[in-house]
Amino acid sequence: MASPDPDRRLPGGLIEDRDAWSADRCSVDAALGVVGTRSAMLLMREAFYGARRFEQFARRVGITDAVAAARLRELVDAGLLQRRPYQEPGQRTRQEYVLTAMGRDLLPAVIALMQWGDRWLAGEGGPPVTLTHEGDADCGQPVGVELRCAAGHPVAPRELRAHVHEDERSRAT
Amino acid sequence: MASPDPDRRLPGGLIEDRDAWSADRCSVDAALGVVGTRSAMLLMREAFYGARRFEQFARRVGITDAVAAARLRELVDAGLLQRRPYQEPGQRTRQEYVLTAMGRDLLPAVIALMQWGDRWLAGEGGPPVTLTHEGDADCGQPVGVELRCAAGHPVAPRELRAHVHEDERSRAT
Repeated sequence: MASPDPDRRLPGGLIEDRDAWSADRCSVDAALGVVGTRSAMLLMREAFYGARRFEQFARRVGITDAVAAARLRELVDAGLLQRRPYQEPGQRTRQEYVLTAMGRDLLPAVIALMQWGDRWLAGEGGPPVTLTHEGDADCGQPVGVELRCAAGHPVAPRELRAHVHEDERSRAT
Repeated sequence: MASPDPDRRLPGGLIEDRDAWSADRCSVDAALGVVGTRSAMLLMREAFYGARRFEQFARRVGITDAVAAARLRELVDAGLLQRRPYQEPGQRTRQEYVLTAMGRDLLPAVIALMQWGDRWLAGEGGPPVTLTHEGDADCGQPVGVELRCAAGHPVAPRELRAHVHEDERSRAT
């Protein structure tokens, strides 16, 4: 690797000693164990967009009611959604699904996928949905995900390094 | 909804007029069409960690060689990886897989999933891998994904609004 091409640095790898890492406890894999199917991720999208009732979830995800019911149960069991009774006047009590703190915390991952899809797959029509900042500042600017360090610096991919914890190294031997 | 509980705002929904949106061209769904399987996403993780050769990819993902070969081909066809010949002295020419710009741009989504897994699923051992900022600043601080607007403000989930483009509204009718 004689040429110090900065573009090569990331493809060269975030982990210097890749063979020392077993991936047994990889958090990406753990996350995909919970939301690693299209239907689970799209049900979470619907929750972020405001779905609460079963028919609202099933409607736009393009899955059968049986699959939607099974997936919603999995998301409840995993702790991303909470089941809560509601009752409309003159109707029987039914269940709605609301985001927990764990579920809400998945939002950056969903937005990261949206942003990537917007950039690389949206085609001529452009992004179908735009996210904007409407906080106390009433800023109105488009929102995306960024890599930042705890000191607040924006982080370019080539400035990133991955460190495998000692415990994981010993597992790999 | 009489109580203006800020925590309720996000579960109340990012899109005000959800029924006006058909989700036909959803960029989350489009992204999942490409990287919506556990194996595709974990192969991308391996690429970020430095894998280039077939046996490096297959090794830690826990899939058969046949599945790894099929998935790598899909990732090449979709434009996330590029096949490139390499040759070691005295060996026949083989193919390695390097990240394209489109592939590299998926990094925030992979890190967002890792961060969520670290927070909610890592258990007692804590996160097995830490990402740090090692740029020109040599900062060394841990790196994560954040929601930020184009004006540079950090964005809390409750400050986020989703806007459906007019074209998509007409599709929904």
